Amino acid sequence: MKDRLKNQINFILEIDKLKNIYRQSLLLDGKRRENDAEHSWHIAIMALVLQEYSNFDVDILKVIKMLILHDIVEIDAGDVVIFDTQKRKEQANVEKDAANRIFGKLPIDQRKEFINLWNEFEELKTPESKYARVLDRLEPILLNYYSGGRAWKDANITKQQVIEINQIIEQGATEMWEFVQELIDEATNKGYLKGHF
Amino acid sequence: MKDRLKNQINFILEIDKLKNIYRQSLLLDGKRRENDAEHSWHIAIMALVLQEYSNFDVDILKVIKMLILHDIVEIDAGDVVIFDTQKRKEQANVEKDAANRIFGKLPIDQRKEFINLWNEFEELKTPESKYARVLDRLEPILLNYYSGGRAWKDANITKQQVIEINQIIEQGATEMWEFVQELIDEATNKGYLKGHF
Repeated sequence: MKDRLKNQINFILEIDKLKNIYRQSLLLDGKRRENDAEHSWHIAIMALVLQEYSNFDVDILKVIKMLILHDIVEIDAGDVVIFDTQKRKEQANVEKDAANRIFGKLPIDQRKEFINLWNEFEELKTPESKYARVLDRLEPILLNYYSGGRAWKDANITKQQVIEINQIIEQGATEMWEFVQELIDEATNKGYLKGHF
Repeated sequence: MKDRLKNQINFILEIDKLKNIYRQSLLLDGKRRENDAEHSWHIAIMALVLQEYSNFDVDILKVIKMLILHDIVEIDAGDVVIFDTQKRKEQANVEKDAANRIFGKLPIDQRKEFINLWNEFEELKTPESKYARVLDRLEPILLNYYSGGRAWKDANITKQQVIEINQIIEQGATEMWEFVQELIDEATNKGYLKGHF
């Protein structure tokens, strides 16, 4: 086997591990947690279905590339609870090393492209990264709400936390943020989220 | 919520079920079977990484759309063992109904686009569908080979069966088929596949 193909196959085999990185959200049937590979697939389809709500014209291929690639660093870095803002900051360097190790298995042209896409997603400056972030945040909200709020309730999450963490959605899709705020209000009314006291 | 957004969200919730449709292949660590959502994610990335081996210039966005959408029909139809050629024929109508039911949840413009993409993948006439099929077939071969061949051994699969089912890869990517034939030979030598007697 040629070195180039060998490196590509090694990368493809390495990322199989993403199927064993479990997240906080439960599947809609409530029976188990979702893993990163499933999440990445789901948000890629959501990017297609919800594109009309993006605040910007976007290169949808680039959005999908970011969405299916960006969680791969969690093979080394693990999934960090989104509400643990301190740990998420510490996580940045670990994820950078992970990107270099895992995308580093690829031939240099592909390595560069994928690391650039991962950086672009993290930096949140371009229209594509802002729209991609909408989907990445919206999906767990949908899963948590429509599975009866158990992941939120078990972790004692408040309405305010969900608003603070997710208002980034507004940057990429204002109309979608309006919809999410309605869901958050309903979730609070139903007792899925703790309200103000 | 507007009807259009409501229908889109209903579709997004419906396809969560794909995460519970389990395939024949084991994950590389051998600990459990892979599900359709994970498979769809994996082959989308493979489409990016292996594009240079496609026999045709392809619209890679279209390829990825087909790959992340085509298994959704298995929510209703289930995963059929690829070597059961009789059952796979009977399955065609069940999958057609499934496509109409599940994609039918979407607004009509998106419904039409997704059903057309699903049909194009199934009909295997266009460059994009031929290249997409390469990835869909290659991924389980990689998983089966590099997890020690257990899924093949447990089902008593022969070398000849794997060749017949997968030679379709040659239509989309001749060089990849050469690589796969080497893997099949090695799998036979290692006893993962039954050889000729």
